[in-house]
Amino acid sequence: MSRLSEKNCTACRADSPLLSEADVHTALLQLPDWEIEDVGGINQLMRVYRFKNFVSALVFTQAVGELAEEYGHHPALLTEWGKVKVSWWTHKIHGVHENDVIMAAKTEQLFLTRFAT
Amino acid sequence: MSRLSEKNCTACRADSPLLSEADVHTALLQLPDWEIEDVGGINQLMRVYRFKNFVSALVFTQAVGELAEEYGHHPALLTEWGKVKVSWWTHKIHGVHENDVIMAAKTEQLFLTRFAT
Repeated sequence: MSRLSEKNCTACRADSPLLSEADVHTALLQLPDWEIEDVGGINQLMRVYRFKNFVSALVFTQAVGELAEEYGHHPALLTEWGKVKVSWWTHKIHGVHENDVIMAAKTEQLFLTRFAT
Repeated sequence: MSRLSEKNCTACRADSPLLSEADVHTALLQLPDWEIEDVGGINQLMRVYRFKNFVSALVFTQAVGELAEEYGHHPALLTEWGKVKVSWWTHKIHGVHENDVIMAAKTEQLFLTRFAT
């Protein structure tokens, strides 16, 4: 996962390829707490992070938001009391691109270094 | 709506009443941009706010989060590029309490005073 989290997003066009099923399988081996969620027919790479209260969840949302802005690729962040659901996918190709796997790995790295207790 | 937004949340117990259909109707007259969304059988009071980019959406999420913390009642905040979906409901009673209407009005006030262009 350390390698994945060190990669950078590439420019993504409408004709860029979705990850194959095999690629997704390989990615999930490196991101064991993540899963693929089908949202209205669009595959998204998703993890729910747990926190001790609302404020801690909100701080994490802010941090993931800053990470997203830094790399110019943006997730959906569902913030509730004690949890944040992070979903990465690529709008242009209606599914999961390698960039999403990279951003999930960077999210994981952020959580482990600054938020895991 | 100004009156609603000036009210305070009351302590809510598991046997506190859900708002009646008539009460919800009256509330929505005062909150015309909000609607009731059925999420897995639980009614939630919901509005999607639009923004010019991801950062503006994230700043609004942070502001609503601070409002929620101030009043000790917490929504679900779904932050994406250019939009934030705010959902208020009361976990204890599995639906919409008067507190949720008050918090929706306070959210609206916050948006109008600090974020509306």
